[in-house]
Amino acid sequence: MSRWITEEDIENLAVGAALLGTGGGGDPYLGKLMVQKCIRENGPIELIDPNQLSDQDTVIPVSMMGAPTIMTEKIPNGDESLKSLRLMEKQSGVKANATMPVECGGLNSTIPFVVASKAGIPVVDADGMGRAFPELQMETFHIHGVSASPTALHDERGNAVFLEAQDSPMIEHIARGVAVRMGGVAHAAMYKMTGKEVKDTSIHNTMSLCIDLGKAIRETQITKQNPIEVIKHVTKNSIYGEAIVLFEGKVTDVERKSTDGFVRGKATVSGLKSFIGKTLQVDFQNENLCAQIDGKVVAMVPDLITFLDSETGLPITTEGMKYGFRVICIGIPTPPIMRSDKAIEVWGPRYFGYDMDYVEIEKIHDKEESHV
Amino acid sequence: MSRWITEEDIENLAVGAALLGTGGGGDPYLGKLMVQKCIRENGPIELIDPNQLSDQDTVIPVSMMGAPTIMTEKIPNGDESLKSLRLMEKQSGVKANATMPVECGGLNSTIPFVVASKAGIPVVDADGMGRAFPELQMETFHIHGVSASPTALHDERGNAVFLEAQDSPMIEHIARGVAVRMGGVAHAAMYKMTGKEVKDTSIHNTMSLCIDLGKAIRETQITKQNPIEVIKHVTKNSIYGEAIVLFEGKVTDVERKSTDGFVRGKATVSGLKSFIGKTLQVDFQNENLCAQIDGKVVAMVPDLITFLDSETGLPITTEGMKYGFRVICIGIPTPPIMRSDKAIEVWGPRYFGYDMDYVEIEKIHDKEESHV
Repeated sequence: MSRWITEEDIENLAVGAALLGTGGGGDPYLGKLMVQKCIRENGPIELIDPNQLSDQDTVIPVSMMGAPTIMTEKIPNGDESLKSLRLMEKQSGVKANATMPVECGGLNSTIPFVVASKAGIPVVDADGMGRAFPELQMETFHIHGVSASPTALHDERGNAVFLEAQDSPMIEHIARGVAVRMGGVAHAAMYKMTGKEVKDTSIHNTMSLCIDLGKAIRETQITKQNPIEVIKHVTKNSIYGEAIVLFEGKVTDVERKSTDGFVRGKATVSGLKSFIGKTLQVDFQNENLCAQIDGKVVAMVPDLITFLDSETGLPITTEGMKYGFRVICIGIPTPPIMRSDKAIEVWGPRYFGYDMDYVEIEKIHDKEESHV
Repeated sequence: MSRWITEEDIENLAVGAALLGTGGGGDPYLGKLMVQKCIRENGPIELIDPNQLSDQDTVIPVSMMGAPTIMTEKIPNGDESLKSLRLMEKQSGVKANATMPVECGGLNSTIPFVVASKAGIPVVDADGMGRAFPELQMETFHIHGVSASPTALHDERGNAVFLEAQDSPMIEHIARGVAVRMGGVAHAAMYKMTGKEVKDTSIHNTMSLCIDLGKAIRETQITKQNPIEVIKHVTKNSIYGEAIVLFEGKVTDVERKSTDGFVRGKATVSGLKSFIGKTLQVDFQNENLCAQIDGKVVAMVPDLITFLDSETGLPITTEGMKYGFRVICIGIPTPPIMRSDKAIEVWGPRYFGYDMDYVEIEKIHDKEESHV
């Protein structure tokens, strides 16, 4: 059944997607404003369940790629992604029946709504990461056999690239080079799929989950409920596992470098309350990759690691982290589809250069608990 | 009138083009072998005068871009450039009536013959640089209003990029990023033109000149004439000015770094004979840019600066320069079309970061002479 997305839904979506975005996927404030303007102009936007697609439908996902730090400086005007979609349509000789996000993230979950509104097509309630990841081949689409080739890229100055490559990692490699030359950010249309492929390879209903999650968090500002309890409740009743509080403290350092089309660095947090005397370090490449407390790993990709504002429970993105912020760091167990051997090969800790095997966050946490 | 290019002509072309290539444009030995194989398989290749084109003909130039040091390691198989031409044809909905080189250079003057042989079309006797230059917008085509956009790029693994950009410098910027990601070298089809545009914007008959020049140099190995005298004679009777001997000596140092899709560095030569006690330094970015003797500039872009083997008069490319080589460094005045204000803006010394105005090589040399 279709759901018609309103301005209020988008407020919620932006918050929920930024939370699942684990620090990446772009600034939710920008994304929200862009979609709300579209809704004011063109009315509510249709969000459809993957099962509403016919097997023969054509779906073209859209997204931004590059360093989120740069996305907040080179603000999208919303037309670039539509142009990428149109370029893909023209080159492939098809018309998109729907668009969809490739990941959960403040900008990358909202941009498909902008394109949908402008093109008069629905958004599919699904994505290919179930969170945000930094590289283009890190998609359930790729893992289940859909190629990222061809890819259409656009920038705000009208420069356009249509790219066909031997496989999805090579698309990532070349497209990243193009994004760097386009000023650090590019607007992409990629993973063109049939309706059947979307149904078979995507993570279903993540946009609805983002809306529910964002709504629950935002409502605590009125109800004065504890946002962490609310997040635990929503995640427990989803395809994800129940959120786990990893740490609470004050940000004492953020190292951040925008290079090679990514933002890389680490955040250091000094413990407060029950974590006093301890130090958390979280490494990121656009997204948070690995969390360690006093040198001991407490969560790692692909499980979600997200910083929340201690007061409001609102998620903080990689590029928004600043010295002095009071934060709670939570971990969320990923759905089983994201933990297959093939999936761990694509986005597990070893891919990111960590010399360790993937251990599920709930297992690390269970062990911790039993020690206490 | 058409000229039918034989294996022997290609021996000469490769040498002459490497000489006008001023150190860049790729290894002449590789280029020669590729074309000769084509001629053995498909017969002689037609070289036509630009004036043989009808105004409505479509001409698609082909070339390699990247660091020449890498071209000798990632040896082209000849199909990549044809694939780029085909990609350009498909995307633009046209058929090429002819191809042509974008520059004079060991590889980049011969690759169009490979493509012509495989596609069954002629090569136009002209180019857009009258020498080799490192960047894609450094073309008389661009200077006279033909855009480098769109551009088609291919690599040896079947990765393909079709690029449309706001202007030719942006094509250079993005395509260079793609070439880097393709492993340091890409095969390009660009500057698609009408026959009229070729006639109006290209430097005519440079391929014939390369053949004549190469033939004259190679014949000195039999006639025992002085190759320098022969080069002076051929250049004097061309649209270029008479070649000037800048230096003679032994290579004592070559700094060379393949980075950002270019090879950059400098060669140092200790004087011999009448240059004893003096030191020549030549900076290069793929091509030789500026020659200084004991810190005094004796030649600069766009005039040609080329190293020749002292014994044979054969040109030495940037990537072939080695410690201990006995060399003669010559300068050749460029044709007037390459010295207009607009042209100097595109490829004069200031563009390459030198804080000096362009001074014609023959003026520098006249002054030198009058001092002696």
